[in-house]
Amino acid sequence: MKEPLRIGLIGCGFMGRAHSNAYNRVSNFFDTALAPKLKAVCSRDPGRTQKFADTWGYDSTETDWRSLVDRDDIDAIDICVPNSLHGEITRAAAAAGKMVLCEKPLAMTVAEGELMCRAVEEAGVANMVWYNYRRVPAVTLAKQLIEEGKLGRVFHYRANFLQDWTIAEDLPQGGQALWRLDVAEAGSGVTGDLLAHCVDTALWLNGAIQDVSAMSETFVKQRVHQLTGEVTPVGIDDACAFLCRFDNGSLGVFESTRYARGHKAQYTLEVNGEHASLRWDLHDLHRLEYFSHADEGRLRGWRSIHVTDHDGSQPYMDKWWVPGLQIGYEHTFVHQLADFLEGLSTGVSTVPTFRDALATQKVCDAVLRSARDRAWAFVGE
Amino acid sequence: MKEPLRIGLIGCGFMGRAHSNAYNRVSNFFDTALAPKLKAVCSRDPGRTQKFADTWGYDSTETDWRSLVDRDDIDAIDICVPNSLHGEITRAAAAAGKMVLCEKPLAMTVAEGELMCRAVEEAGVANMVWYNYRRVPAVTLAKQLIEEGKLGRVFHYRANFLQDWTIAEDLPQGGQALWRLDVAEAGSGVTGDLLAHCVDTALWLNGAIQDVSAMSETFVKQRVHQLTGEVTPVGIDDACAFLCRFDNGSLGVFESTRYARGHKAQYTLEVNGEHASLRWDLHDLHRLEYFSHADEGRLRGWRSIHVTDHDGSQPYMDKWWVPGLQIGYEHTFVHQLADFLEGLSTGVSTVPTFRDALATQKVCDAVLRSARDRAWAFVGE
Amino acid sequence: MKEPLRIGLIGCGFMGRAHSNAYNRVSNFFDTALAPKLKAVCSRDPGRTQKFADTWGYDSTETDWRSLVDRDDIDAIDICVPNSLHGEITRAAAAAGKMVLCEKPLAMTVAEGELMCRAVEEAGVANMVWYNYRRVPAVTLAKQLIEEGKLGRVFHYRANFLQDWTIAEDLPQGGQALWRLDVAEAGSGVTGDLLAHCVDTALWLNGAIQDVSAMSETFVKQRVHQLTGEVTPVGIDDACAFLCRFDNGSLGVFESTRYARGHKAQYTLEVNGEHASLRWDLHDLHRLEYFSHADEGRLRGWRSIHVTDHDGSQPYMDKWWVPGLQIGYEHTFVHQLADFLEGLSTGVSTVPTFRDALATQKVCDAVLRSARDRAWAFVGE
Amino acid sequence: MKEPLRIGLIGCGFMGRAHSNAYNRVSNFFDTALAPKLKAVCSRDPGRTQKFADTWGYDSTETDWRSLVDRDDIDAIDICVPNSLHGEITRAAAAAGKMVLCEKPLAMTVAEGELMCRAVEEAGVANMVWYNYRRVPAVTLAKQLIEEGKLGRVFHYRANFLQDWTIAEDLPQGGQALWRLDVAEAGSGVTGDLLAHCVDTALWLNGAIQDVSAMSETFVKQRVHQLTGEVTPVGIDDACAFLCRFDNGSLGVFESTRYARGHKAQYTLEVNGEHASLRWDLHDLHRLEYFSHADEGRLRGWRSIHVTDHDGSQPYMDKWWVPGLQIGYEHTFVHQLADFLEGLSTGVSTVPTFRDALATQKVCDAVLRSARDRAWAFVGE
Repeated sequence: MKEPLRIGLIGCGFMGRAHSNAYNRVSNFFDTALAPKLKAVCSRDPGRTQKFADTWGYDSTETDWRSLVDRDDIDAIDICVPNSLHGEITRAAAAAGKMVLCEKPLAMTVAEGELMCRAVEEAGVANMVWYNYRRVPAVTLAKQLIEEGKLGRVFHYRANFLQDWTIAEDLPQGGQALWRLDVAEAGSGVTGDLLAHCVDTALWLNGAIQDVSAMSETFVKQRVHQLTGEVTPVGIDDACAFLCRFDNGSLGVFESTRYARGHKAQYTLEVNGEHASLRWDLHDLHRLEYFSHADEGRLRGWRSIHVTDHDGSQPYMDKWWVPGLQIGYEHTFVHQLADFLEGLSTGVSTVPTFRDALATQKVCDAVLRSARDRAWAFVGE
Repeated sequence: MKEPLRIGLIGCGFMGRAHSNAYNRVSNFFDTALAPKLKAVCSRDPGRTQKFADTWGYDSTETDWRSLVDRDDIDAIDICVPNSLHGEITRAAAAAGKMVLCEKPLAMTVAEGELMCRAVEEAGVANMVWYNYRRVPAVTLAKQLIEEGKLGRVFHYRANFLQDWTIAEDLPQGGQALWRLDVAEAGSGVTGDLLAHCVDTALWLNGAIQDVSAMSETFVKQRVHQLTGEVTPVGIDDACAFLCRFDNGSLGVFESTRYARGHKAQYTLEVNGEHASLRWDLHDLHRLEYFSHADEGRLRGWRSIHVTDHDGSQPYMDKWWVPGLQIGYEHTFVHQLADFLEGLSTGVSTVPTFRDALATQKVCDAVLRSARDRAWAFVGE
Repeated sequence: MKEPLRIGLIGCGFMGRAHSNAYNRVSNFFDTALAPKLKAVCSRDPGRTQKFADTWGYDSTETDWRSLVDRDDIDAIDICVPNSLHGEITRAAAAAGKMVLCEKPLAMTVAEGELMCRAVEEAGVANMVWYNYRRVPAVTLAKQLIEEGKLGRVFHYRANFLQDWTIAEDLPQGGQALWRLDVAEAGSGVTGDLLAHCVDTALWLNGAIQDVSAMSETFVKQRVHQLTGEVTPVGIDDACAFLCRFDNGSLGVFESTRYARGHKAQYTLEVNGEHASLRWDLHDLHRLEYFSHADEGRLRGWRSIHVTDHDGSQPYMDKWWVPGLQIGYEHTFVHQLADFLEGLSTGVSTVPTFRDALATQKVCDAVLRSARDRAWAFVGE
Repeated sequence: MKEPLRIGLIGCGFMGRAHSNAYNRVSNFFDTALAPKLKAVCSRDPGRTQKFADTWGYDSTETDWRSLVDRDDIDAIDICVPNSLHGEITRAAAAAGKMVLCEKPLAMTVAEGELMCRAVEEAGVANMVWYNYRRVPAVTLAKQLIEEGKLGRVFHYRANFLQDWTIAEDLPQGGQALWRLDVAEAGSGVTGDLLAHCVDTALWLNGAIQDVSAMSETFVKQRVHQLTGEVTPVGIDDACAFLCRFDNGSLGVFESTRYARGHKAQYTLEVNGEHASLRWDLHDLHRLEYFSHADEGRLRGWRSIHVTDHDGSQPYMDKWWVPGLQIGYEHTFVHQLADFLEGLSTGVSTVPTFRDALATQKVCDAVLRSARDRAWAFVGE
C-alpha cells in the first residue's frame, strides 16, 4: 500500500482540471512511493465545487481557502487561482507547514515573489511551480542534449508563443475564464501568461538572461468587464516581444501575442549551437526537430524525431504506450507530478522551485519595465 | 450517483492498459449516466494480475477467464487477449448474458466471427469491437464531412499502416508481447493487426468493398519461439498490400508492413472526392488535412486543421482542454467508451458492433485468400 | 569555341519548350565540349512554329517532320510530339543516321518499342529518352545512396503520381494540349503518362520487376473530341494502380490518377531498406527525406535534406547558385542534356537509352494487360 | 524584331551570373517589347571576364568600369560589385545618361544613398535595385492579398533570415566570394546583406517603419583577410535582430544571422491580420501559407498553397510550365527584369527604385545606430 500525499486543491478552472487529472493518473503509469490522495477542493461557488469534487474524486469541498489551509488532513496545497491570490495563499499555506504547488507565473511582481520564496524556504516546505512544458518529453530530451554538450557553444535562442483568441473587440475582460484579461487579477497580459513559459524554458535550457529590450502593445484599449458590465480600460499587454543577451553570450529573441490569427497556442522554441540546433513546437508537442552538423555533409537535414520510443531512451515515454503513439498536453502535468513525488521520496527538490520561478519573474518584470521605459533593462535591478 | 457498469477485463497487456485507462478516465471528462466500475481483471499469472489490479484499481482478480465470465457481479466482459481466444470467450460471455467488448480483429476467421456475431445477437447483449481509430477527433470529423457530402463523388481511397519493429531477425515470435508474430495466436500478421484497422475505417468512411487483389510476404522465414526456445517457421504475413474496388465505384489501395524502416506506427489515409479531399496520419493524429476545390482558385491549398477547438464544432474536443492543446493516442478509447456508455443509456448500439467488425473480417479474409491464390477475390465469397 | 551539336526539334508544346530551354541554358552552367546549336524546329502550323523559333532561337522552321529528318545540317532529332508518332519518326531519323532524343513514353506498345530500339541500335546512333526525373538532384542522390548500400536489403518500394486536372466532365479530349486524353494519340492514359515515370525511376533505383497485378478505371466514359466536336468514348485509363514484386525480393505498390483532388503533379516515391529509408516528392523536388537506423536511437528521425549544397557533394548543385536556393522543374532537363553531351564526348551511352525505356514499356504493357485480364501478369511475356 | 536594350554588366560573381541568366531567359518566357542585348561585361581580371563573357554571351569585355560607363553602345549599367563601389559607379553612369540597375543594398550609408538617388533622378534615368524576393510568385501573391484587404488590420509582422555559413573560425574575410565579411567592402554584415531583404519586403507589404530597437553581435572577433593573409578584426555584424513599430500600428520582430546551424538561406516572413494571416519561406519558395478566419470554424487551418497554377491567377506562373511544377530561385530575377522592360515600354518606374531602396537603407542605418547606442532609434533621423 502506498503512502498517501493528501492534496488540497484551490481553484476549479482549466488548471484545476489539468492538475486533478495528473493526481488521478500518476499511479497508473509511474511507480512512485507516494500516491496522491484527493482530500479537498476549494472554490467560491459551492455547487460548482461539489460538481468538480464528484467529477475528479475529491473527498470534500471548501469554499474559503483559509479553511482549507487550516485543515490538519492536508499535506500539500495546490494553487490554481488567479495570480493575484498566489502570494497570500502561499504565505498562509507555508505558515501552516503545508507543501505548496503553485500555478505559474509565481507572483504579481518580483517583490511579492521574493516574499513567497522566503515563506516556503523559511517554513522548509516542499514547493514547486507548474511550468509544465519542461516535462514535454521532446523538451526534456532537448535539455539532455544541451547538457551533454551536443550543441556546443550556443549562438541563438528564439521563442514565440502565439495565440489569437482575444482579437474580437466584444470579448469581455475579467471574471470566470477571462481573468487573464484583467490586469488586477493577472498582473500582466501575455508577459506573465505566455512569455513566462518561454522564459522558464529558456533559463532552464540556456542559462541566465542579462538584459532585455522590450516592446509591448494593447491593441484593444477597452473592454466590457464581465463582472461589472461596465466598459473599462484594458490594463494588460496584448502582445510583447523582447531582445536579450544570455550570460553564455548567445542572443535571444522572444515574442508573444494573443493577436496572431491562425495560431491557437503556438509555443515554439529554437536553439542554434555550434555543432547542432534543435527546435520544438507545442502544436505537435511530441516531436523534436534536430539538426546535427556532425552528420555526413550531403545528408545533413533537420530530423523530425517522433519522441515516442518506449525503450527508456526518450524521457518518460517508457511509461506510456508503444512507439509511434503520441501523448497529449496533459501528460506534462503527470510527469511533473511524478517527479515531484519522486523528489519527496528522495529528498531532492523538484524544479522549478519557487526560487527557480522567481528568476523567471525577474526577467518578466524587466521586460515590462523595458517596454514601459523604452530602454534596455537589466534583469534583477 | 451514477449507475455502475461492472467491468471484467481479460488480459493485462498493452490493450488491457489502454482500456483500463479509458474506464478510469471517462467520468472525468464525459457526463454519462453510467459509470464503469472495475470489478475484476483476469490473466494467467496471479502476481502480474494482482499488480495490474493495484495499478488500475480493479477490486479483484481472476486467473481463469471462465470463472470471471461466471461471476454474477460483472455486467460486461472486455476481451484483451490474443485473437485465438476471442471466439471461445465471446460465446461463453454471451451465454452468461454479459455484454462483450472485444479487441480487434474480431476473430481468427470469418467463420468464427459469424459464430461470435450469432452468439451476442441471440443472447441480445450489447457488443462492440475496439476499432478505436474511428474516435480520433480528426477521423470523426472526416466522417462528418463525408456524410455531409462535402467530398461529392469519391474517386480514390488509400491507406497505409507502416511499422518497422520486426526487421531484426533475432526477434523471437510468440508469448508475452510477441504473440502477434505467432500465427497460432494471431491468425495472421499485419493483415489482422494493421490492415484490419485500415479496412474498418475505410468501410465506415467509404462503404463496402467488392473485391480485392492482394500480395503478401514473410520476409523473415523462421524465428525462435519465445515460449519453446525452438526455431520454428514464421506463419504470419510480415507485409500485405491490396487493390480493391468499393461499391461506390472508387478505387482503393491499401498497404501494411512491419518492415518500413523509419515508421513506428504510421497509419495514413486519404480520400479524394470530386469537390474535396482529406487525409490523416496517426503520427500527428490531432491534425486533419483538407483540400477544398470550392476555395478561391489562387488560394487553394491543403489546410492543416489542428482539431483541438473546444467550442463543440470539432468532435469530442469540447471535453478536453483549450484550443491548440493536442490529445494523445489513448483518448480514442475514452471516446469510444463514452459513446458505448451513452449508447447503453439510449438503447442505441455503438458502432462498430461485432456485425460491423465481421464485415472487416470478410475483407481481411478475402485479402489473405487473394494473396494465397494470386487472384482477385470477392469479399464475402 | 565549342563544337556544335545541331538540333532539330519536332513539336512546339510543353515538352518542346522544356527541351528548348535546356538547349539554351546548358552552356551557361555546364562546361561541356559540345554545345547545342538550334538549327530547326518543326510543327504543323507555320505561324505557331515561326513564333516558337523566334522565342527560342531556332535558325529555321519546318512543317513536315520528314523534311526535317532529311536535312543534312541536323545531328540530332528531338521528338516532342504525341506518342503515336514516336515510332515512325524514330525509324526515319535513325535511317537518316541522326541521333534520336525521344520524349517518354518510348512507344505505343512493346512491339513498337522493340522496333525502335532495333532501329537506333542498328543505325548505331546515340539515343536517349527524356525520363527527366532521374536528374532531380534529390533523386540522383537517392540513387547514389542505394548504390553505396546505405539502405541494405530493400523491403518496400512505393510510388504515387497524383493529379486532378481532368475531373471536370466538360473537358474535351484530343488535339492541342489535350492529346493525352485521346487513346489514339497517347496509347494509354495515366499508365504511359504518369506511371511510366514512376516505373522508370523504380527500375533505376530498385532493379527489375517480375510481375504485376493492376486495376484501372475510366471515370468519365465519354468526352467531346476537341478536333471533331463530337462526343466520343474515352479510351484511356483515368487511374491505374498496381502491385508488383521486384527481382530483389521487395514489394512494390504504385498508383496514378488524374482524379486526386488537391494534387497538381504529386509524384512521390519511398524506398524502405533494412538500414535506411528515403522518400521524395515532386511538389518540393529539391528535398530528399532520409531516415537512418544507424543514427543514435533516441535521435532517429526523418531528415529533410535541402539538396542545394554547392560543394560538389550533392549531384549537379555545384553548377547553380548557393546553398539554400532551390532549383526548378526545368533544371532536370538541363542536367539530362548535360549528361548526354558529356556522354557523346566520352563515348558512353547516357541512360535511359531506348533499350532502358523499353524495359519501362514492358512493365506498363504488363500493367495494362493485368488490368484488362484481372490477373497477375509477368513482365515481358 | 524586338528593340534591344543594351546591357553593360559590372561584376562576375554570384549576382553577375544571376542577372546574366535573367537577361538570357526573359525573352523565352515574357513577351516584352524590349529585348536585352548583352553588349559588355566588366571585371578586373581579364581572363575571368572573358570566360564569363563566353559563358553568358556578352559581346565584349572591359576591365575598367569607367570605360564601360563611357561607351556609347550601352543603354543600361548593371552593378553587381561589392557595396563600396555602388555609389561611385552610379554617379558616373547617371552622369553618362545610362539607366542604372544596382544590386542591393543600395549604398554604404543613407548619405551615400541620398546622393545616388539624386544622381539618377537629376539625370532622369531609369533606375532599379534588385530586391528580387518581391518577385517570388508566392510573395507577389501575398502583396496582392494584402492590397485587397484580405488581412484587414495588421497586428504583427515577423521576419527572419538565418544562415550558418560563417560559423567556422578559420573562414577568411575579404576578397573573392568573401567580401561580404569585410566591413570596408560591405559596409555592414547581416544587416545590409540579409536584413535589407527582410526590410524591403516588409516596407512593401506593410508600410513604413517608425522606430527600432536593435541588438547585434560579432561572434568571431578576428579572421584572416583573404587578400593580405593577415589576421584582422572583423568589423561586420554576424547577427542582428530588432524590434520595431510600423506606421499602421503593427509590431515587427526581425532577426538575421550567419550562425544559425542548420539553415542555409532561411528567409521566412509572417504577417498576422485581423481576418487572415500569411507566411512564406525561401527554402520552399513556391509555397504560400495562408490562414483565413473566414473559413468555416471547424475547418480552419493553414493552407499550403503551391503557387504554380498557370491560369493567370497566380502571379507570373502562366509564363512557365504546368501546375505543380515548381520554379527556382533565379526566376525571381527574370520576373523583375520582365517588369523593368515592361516599365520602360509603358513609362512607369519599376519598383523598387533607388528612392524605394533608400527607405530600406534608412531602416538599416537606424538598426545599426540603435544596436550601437543600445537605444531606440527613429528611422530617418
